[in-house]
Amino acid sequence: MQTSSTQKPHVVIIGGGFGGLAAARQLRRANLRVTLVDRNNYHLFQPLLYQVATGGLSPSNIASPLRYILRKQANCEVLLAEVVDIDVDRQSVLFSDGQLDYDFLITAAGATHSYFGRDEWESNAPGLKTIEQALDIRRRIYSAFEAAERQSNPELRKALLTFVIVGGGPTGVELSGALAEIARHTLKHDFRHINPEDARIIIVEAAEHVLAHYPPDLCERAAEKIRSRGIEILTHTKVTEVTDEHVKLSGTDGETLLATHTVLWAAGVQANSLGKTIAGKCGVEVDRAGRVPVTQQLSVGSYENVFVIGDLANCPDASGKPLPGLAPVAIQQGEYVARLIEDKVSGRLSKKPFEYKDRGTMATIGRSAAVALVGTKKFCGFFAWTLWLAIHLFQILLFENRMLILIQWIWGYLTYHRSSRIITGGHQPALTKQSGTVPKAPVTANSPS
Amino acid sequence: MQTSSTQKPHVVIIGGGFGGLAAARQLRRANLRVTLVDRNNYHLFQPLLYQVATGGLSPSNIASPLRYILRKQANCEVLLAEVVDIDVDRQSVLFSDGQLDYDFLITAAGATHSYFGRDEWESNAPGLKTIEQALDIRRRIYSAFEAAERQSNPELRKALLTFVIVGGGPTGVELSGALAEIARHTLKHDFRHINPEDARIIIVEAAEHVLAHYPPDLCERAAEKIRSRGIEILTHTKVTEVTDEHVKLSGTDGETLLATHTVLWAAGVQANSLGKTIAGKCGVEVDRAGRVPVTQQLSVGSYENVFVIGDLANCPDASGKPLPGLAPVAIQQGEYVARLIEDKVSGRLSKKPFEYKDRGTMATIGRSAAVALVGTKKFCGFFAWTLWLAIHLFQILLFENRMLILIQWIWGYLTYHRSSRIITGGHQPALTKQSGTVPKAPVTANSPS
Repeated sequence: MQTSSTQKPHVVIIGGGFGGLAAARQLRRANLRVTLVDRNNYHLFQPLLYQVATGGLSPSNIASPLRYILRKQANCEVLLAEVVDIDVDRQSVLFSDGQLDYDFLITAAGATHSYFGRDEWESNAPGLKTIEQALDIRRRIYSAFEAAERQSNPELRKALLTFVIVGGGPTGVELSGALAEIARHTLKHDFRHINPEDARIIIVEAAEHVLAHYPPDLCERAAEKIRSRGIEILTHTKVTEVTDEHVKLSGTDGETLLATHTVLWAAGVQANSLGKTIAGKCGVEVDRAGRVPVTQQLSVGSYENVFVIGDLANCPDASGKPLPGLAPVAIQQGEYVARLIEDKVSGRLSKKPFEYKDRGTMATIGRSAAVALVGTKKFCGFFAWTLWLAIHLFQILLFENRMLILIQWIWGYLTYHRSSRIITGGHQPALTKQSGTVPKAPVTANSPS
Repeated sequence: MQTSSTQKPHVVIIGGGFGGLAAARQLRRANLRVTLVDRNNYHLFQPLLYQVATGGLSPSNIASPLRYILRKQANCEVLLAEVVDIDVDRQSVLFSDGQLDYDFLITAAGATHSYFGRDEWESNAPGLKTIEQALDIRRRIYSAFEAAERQSNPELRKALLTFVIVGGGPTGVELSGALAEIARHTLKHDFRHINPEDARIIIVEAAEHVLAHYPPDLCERAAEKIRSRGIEILTHTKVTEVTDEHVKLSGTDGETLLATHTVLWAAGVQANSLGKTIAGKCGVEVDRAGRVPVTQQLSVGSYENVFVIGDLANCPDASGKPLPGLAPVAIQQGEYVARLIEDKVSGRLSKKPFEYKDRGTMATIGRSAAVALVGTKKFCGFFAWTLWLAIHLFQILLFENRMLILIQWIWGYLTYHRSSRIITGGHQPALTKQSGTVPKAPVTANSPS
């Protein structure tokens, strides 16, 4: 260890997601000390989290240990800790049991779901941002089929086989596509008293289209493909109530009550509360989604050594609209800030503002279908899907995980089997909970079949 | 569906482990109805559970959905439920929300750990029987290194890097071997303030030898190999206290106190409480480990249609000693009972008693070393290890899982990396818990390095 290392400027990065990790790696040759702080010991590849939630992949296939990724970067250390406060004047990050002084701070703490002020819905409608949530969703999905198999009351059985996905953005569409495949193919031969194909899968979307960020004609083609898989799409529809037995929907035809035991939340984004902390300290105000408005150089207010990037930042594009919460945005911002800090430290003062290079966006609908928008080129179908697979596989950091994912994808494509469809985390909690809400019914195996 | 199916005799199997599953599969062509009841939706390949607990494999690699395994067996259905009672006179299995009548009952509910009457130790010394426990152990192991990295007090750091494994049977030896590999190789380059190689790994065994079921000379050779990996073995030593800060050991030299935050329990076996229920109903008494004494035909007392197999049964071998709780015993018993039931149903009365064919036993010590006993042939070393790998891989039920495990084994062998070393299940609970027991220390990243 170098004794002079304390003299080197210290860069603290909060968050080991796409933005934070890109910044840390970009600084690998810099004459600086870097500390990457995360409350998890891994970098999560969120674009494939829905595959964990639907049993197609194991959590560790898409979670790479941060220490392992950065083990050879001598100027960088990883700290597993949760930040509780930031003191921008004393230049210090505070934990419950210590503190860490910085010369430069990069905050990339990401975002979570927004329940639009109805946080009480969360227990019945989990979102999909963490591995724990993905496993919770997996447990709910497969437990619902199990409970339906045991349920002899047709009404209650129908409710157990009704899956409501709130939000028709990429996550909602991906979840519904995977659910359709589970019901129509994966579980086809598995049950004796229910037909999994009877499952209803419903996307509820407040806007006019699903995948509303894409051009309208592409949305329409995607919606057709989604419907062709037996998924119902309710647009112009809002959720007004969520319980463990139903959701209340408010659409163009008025209010309807839908009996369901499985509601998945894929709507609304709320920046990490650290955004509000930083904004307050720096004398700026967060936007409605809790994001911190940043300067053209991604710093906050008058604090030129405090940066906010990724989903936590409100960074306007050329037209003044905030950039979307996408991995490429976070990565480019992380790299930009890292270069800016290197310049500052070596006395090269750069005034170049951050500029996002949009190389295209894509979303998958399920087996053999995806939409992609590259410049003005639009794709919808098999080609877009193979492109999606290749790009996502390529972005997986560790070679081993790439191999494991590839095998599971190939095998899943050939057999429809999902390698990770186990119910874990306590003994069938969702099932117990659900049977608690229904009248005691005899075990169906006992009734004449 | 056949309307006559209710007329066919009904076999209920409790437990989808090695014994129960073997029975169900053996009955695949029988003119019977079969219901396999398990509280999990998967068959767990327990011999590799320690690899999940040490981050080498993902849970679903060794957990195969029971429905998927049995999907093509038309006479069999799977029920996800927890048995609460059994009525042997009315021939009925009871759940919290229903019941299931049987003509033949095969109970294969397995065993869990015994804390020798000190159940309060469990929270600080988890055992390794379920996926949830494996993930708990994984979290404790990797969190301990994380906490040590943040700990500046050398005494407390040492305690965090001390791992105590209670029990020197196969599970204890396997865990210690994997832990040694993690400390000496996997984490080698990952930390900046600790040297993971400083970790102390200690096996505590009450008997004279580790792997005491093997012949003494093989035990000795195994112990040498274990010690050569830097693992300490304390034989003739008992644990007399377990807290979240230390264990108290009582050995030939008297009592010693060992500061440690990670204690893993691999000692003692206690049969599932269903054993006691059945024994009571059938008028027999369980043994000290809670196992049900069975007849030569594996039935219980005078109830010729109630069978107990696997870890739950006390079935004497030719010398009168109970057969060990091994997968091959359970599998052979499951197949035997299934054939016996088929015979009874078709009117062929067989009086042949169950006889266990011992094809050999083996245990792995870690990378490139295992012990094996095949007949009178003894193996200890690399050959036994490759045999161990091949046999275990071959026994994995699903082809896909076999491929996934093989890749992770090869990759792990070449790189020492463990693909699944992520800390999941809440935010660093072990770390938080541990930091709660130590005085507030400054984050080490802040101290001069």
